[in-house]
Amino acid sequence: MKSAAKNKQRNIKLVIEYDGTNYCGWQTQKNQPSIQETITKALSKITGQEITLYGAGRTDSGVHATGQVANFFTTATLTPFQFLRAINSSLPDDIVIRSVKEVPSSFNARVNARSKVYRYTLLKSSIPSALNRNYSYFVPYKLSLERMKKCVGYLIGRHNFRAFATKSSNKEDCYRTIYSIKITRKGDYIYIDVRGNGFLYNMVRTIVGTILLAGYGKIKPADIKGIIKSADRNKAGPPAPPQGLCLMKLNY
Amino acid sequence: MKSAAKNKQRNIKLVIEYDGTNYCGWQTQKNQPSIQETITKALSKITGQEITLYGAGRTDSGVHATGQVANFFTTATLTPFQFLRAINSSLPDDIVIRSVKEVPSSFNARVNARSKVYRYTLLKSSIPSALNRNYSYFVPYKLSLERMKKCVGYLIGRHNFRAFATKSSNKEDCYRTIYSIKITRKGDYIYIDVRGNGFLYNMVRTIVGTILLAGYGKIKPADIKGIIKSADRNKAGPPAPPQGLCLMKLNY
Repeated sequence: MKSAAKNKQRNIKLVIEYDGTNYCGWQTQKNQPSIQETITKALSKITGQEITLYGAGRTDSGVHATGQVANFFTTATLTPFQFLRAINSSLPDDIVIRSVKEVPSSFNARVNARSKVYRYTLLKSSIPSALNRNYSYFVPYKLSLERMKKCVGYLIGRHNFRAFATKSSNKEDCYRTIYSIKITRKGDYIYIDVRGNGFLYNMVRTIVGTILLAGYGKIKPADIKGIIKSADRNKAGPPAPPQGLCLMKLNY
Repeated sequence: MKSAAKNKQRNIKLVIEYDGTNYCGWQTQKNQPSIQETITKALSKITGQEITLYGAGRTDSGVHATGQVANFFTTATLTPFQFLRAINSSLPDDIVIRSVKEVPSSFNARVNARSKVYRYTLLKSSIPSALNRNYSYFVPYKLSLERMKKCVGYLIGRHNFRAFATKSSNKEDCYRTIYSIKITRKGDYIYIDVRGNGFLYNMVRTIVGTILLAGYGKIKPADIKGIIKSADRNKAGPPAPPQGLCLMKLNY
């Protein structure tokens, strides 16, 4: 009995913060350091086992996270607190495990996520920032916050977001639901907080890029209705650059 | 007359923001990239002249600034706005000139400074931060904000701060005046804002290190009185690490 209990597969959930500046993104790629690979290597070292890490969402190179979620299976007998300390000791300091929890074997970080929250940070100023250069998108242009806020109503709800997906095949289901978009200003910074049930590749950055077009006055907020309807990637704005984006939270 | 006006020496004041992470500090050193040298090279390139840059205060490797001030003399005829654009185009993105102003020839960034404001940022948490790792000092220990605040009264005023200076010769005048120290908490972060007429080498970081000793309960706030009186460097706390420190403002 004791031996069987010891060898029981446990499902471990991680909440992860990372600075994406020096990585090729979440997903493991050949010859480039990724967040997934870096954490997987640390876990394999700690457990002495080959670990597969399931992430809730892929993030691109330069995109950050304060609340990425991932899970993995192991028979290692460490307590969650021991895991937390051991993993953080093995990781470089631009990746931090914020919490470790044992979860039912049915839990899957990606499949079970009910909603995801992303924040996009704009620096609206005539002068860039040295300290926030990797964590915001510098916008020295004239920008109407009012027009940006008027875009929100056209984006919320269940829509075919094909026009906002960089790499979507015609076969792919591009229907997603956006629950809320909040645009707030604090000093020189504008935050765009987007909550949805899931996002296509580059979708949040393309939504921000399209909201910016409206903010610049290049399109009207009401044009977004037609852009969604067109399902044509060429109609939406260019994706805003990665360093302004941060995966804030996964809800289960 | 025109030629004489063109060749007139102008005194140019810069307000500078920088991320000190990748530099050996403000001051030019052999074989290491410094903030001063990087800006000086950009200015020499733009003006075609050999430029000497006078900084208001030296900052160590890893220490940041949002409001460092420096001045230089040139006969170049660019407007302040042209200077601003030209310098920022020539600088790496971890150094940003925030403003350029022509000032009277008598102005000297260091000598004329009436007061300097530094901010030290502590992250009081059980978990470090990936995103703020280079901009805060992670303190996972038990800390009493109340005891830290009680230190302030003993530090404010004109004192011989020899005990708080890392490299002071016996001949050096170590009298400095601290006008205010404000300690505020916001979420997991504690900010220590220190304003004084000038600071000895490592003085702000040693003040923070000593306030931390009181916060940990290793010394009593009232002990600071004796530490100052002793003028003995061994009595004060160790300097808090550089990455938590930021030169916020120079007042003239």
